[in-house]
Amino acid sequence: MRVVRSVAAMQRIALDRRGKGSVGLVPTMGYLHAGHLQLVRAARKQSDYVVVSIFVNPIQFGPKEDFRRYPRDFARDRRLLQSAGVDVVFYPRVRDMYPEGFATFVEVERLGEGLCGKARPGHFRGVTTVVAKLLSVVLPDVAVFGAKDAQQAFVIRRMARDLGFHTRVIILPTVRERDGLAMSSRNVYLSPEQRAEAPALHRSLVLAQNLIRRGERRATIVKAAMRRLIQRESGGRIDYVEMVDTDELRPVKTIEGETLVALAVFFGKTRLIDNTTVKTPNPKL
Amino acid sequence: MRVVRSVAAMQRIALDRRGKGSVGLVPTMGYLHAGHLQLVRAARKQSDYVVVSIFVNPIQFGPKEDFRRYPRDFARDRRLLQSAGVDVVFYPRVRDMYPEGFATFVEVERLGEGLCGKARPGHFRGVTTVVAKLLSVVLPDVAVFGAKDAQQAFVIRRMARDLGFHTRVIILPTVRERDGLAMSSRNVYLSPEQRAEAPALHRSLVLAQNLIRRGERRATIVKAAMRRLIQRESGGRIDYVEMVDTDELRPVKTIEGETLVALAVFFGKTRLIDNTTVKTPNPKL
Repeated sequence: MRVVRSVAAMQRIALDRRGKGSVGLVPTMGYLHAGHLQLVRAARKQSDYVVVSIFVNPIQFGPKEDFRRYPRDFARDRRLLQSAGVDVVFYPRVRDMYPEGFATFVEVERLGEGLCGKARPGHFRGVTTVVAKLLSVVLPDVAVFGAKDAQQAFVIRRMARDLGFHTRVIILPTVRERDGLAMSSRNVYLSPEQRAEAPALHRSLVLAQNLIRRGERRATIVKAAMRRLIQRESGGRIDYVEMVDTDELRPVKTIEGETLVALAVFFGKTRLIDNTTVKTPNPKL
Repeated sequence: MRVVRSVAAMQRIALDRRGKGSVGLVPTMGYLHAGHLQLVRAARKQSDYVVVSIFVNPIQFGPKEDFRRYPRDFARDRRLLQSAGVDVVFYPRVRDMYPEGFATFVEVERLGEGLCGKARPGHFRGVTTVVAKLLSVVLPDVAVFGAKDAQQAFVIRRMARDLGFHTRVIILPTVRERDGLAMSSRNVYLSPEQRAEAPALHRSLVLAQNLIRRGERRATIVKAAMRRLIQRESGGRIDYVEMVDTDELRPVKTIEGETLVALAVFFGKTRLIDNTTVKTPNPKL
């Protein structure tokens, strides 16, 4: 396994790989957990050559967010990726990804504006810019993302399609702890009490699924029930509980077809997100 | 020579070319003139396989601009490119480049804001978005642009560098008519009187070069002399006459190092642009 630190070296490897079999990319911010390793296994299965990028991307953090304290442990990540049979760890420096005079940004309109985009203005612009650069540099045939960051995955899939990248964007199901909490590098921020309460988020998603399965189609009713559960079973401060269509991520009033149920809740300063996708038999079909 | 109309077909060709020698791309809006053919010859010289795109890009035109009446003659363009030894003419439809739900835009901050960016808000965002898509789809090793659209060329070069595209951006000198007028597809809009007066633009650039060569370093003095020449020798309405550094395209007060002298002048509804680059021995070195 090679560790590549410069953009130019990564570009040379990508060029050298042309015509020599498929390349899979797993973009991460490091501090890897079982969810990331699931993505790596999928990339391994789908491609002849696997690149995992580790880059805590400053431009997707707001000025008051956790860029500096975001957890990092490259030595551990490296061991995990070595064991997972990765070919290249692309671990660029900030000044190489964003050299002096950097001025180019990639933005997906509409899809990045609601949900997490409201609380984190500019966040998805930072995400799509860095992922566009990773796709350009690495030239992967597939890129694998986790469904835990559903809005991110949808925004990236639209970006890759719109700009004509030769990359199939694969979105894999969220990996959870035994008690239902979605795996996230940020879970390490939680106090023992917060950690004990955080599975309420997943329970609220299960509640939504059950209500919808039993025939409820009014988004307001489902969202209110989710909020009550979260407030009753945890001390979390709700940022949003929302239901949107999976195409343009617009809030829906009536649940029909494929709907993303998504939420963000603060536990102290730590903002956790989670989501699930529900499908109802579409009455229009 | 193949004419390729769909983005998917162009992507397949690009993938098929991987590892089979270099690819050159010349992005154009068609209605080709000798300037374009110069770019094609350079691409031919620099690469094994030459793709010329013809696409009148709607998103780089303002609502009151000339998108609809922009001159088009595909049959003639096709003959010219066939004679020039081009391998593929990529001639996509608007609905294929911008399918329903298209939402992604690429923007270069600062460089696209002054000069033509002031009179044409959103223009360079349209340019960088379409060129990013062309680079992603065609995967060229080199892309060739003309210096007549200097700001465009600088903005694209920055975009390609910032996003890590594997494409060297080459900028070739402006090709001129015998009387100095820069070749442009829009010259066809000019009345005989306007056409006779339009070479004043080039003469104003030559005047600037001469003043600077003789030691003038004050931008205001040079710009004022250029304006007087244009107003004396033509009926053109000046949009701007500006001198900027060639890195960030910021207006300069003192001419030193490499400076872009650029102008835009309306002849009736027709907006012509032209420029030249001057180098002075840099006193700081």
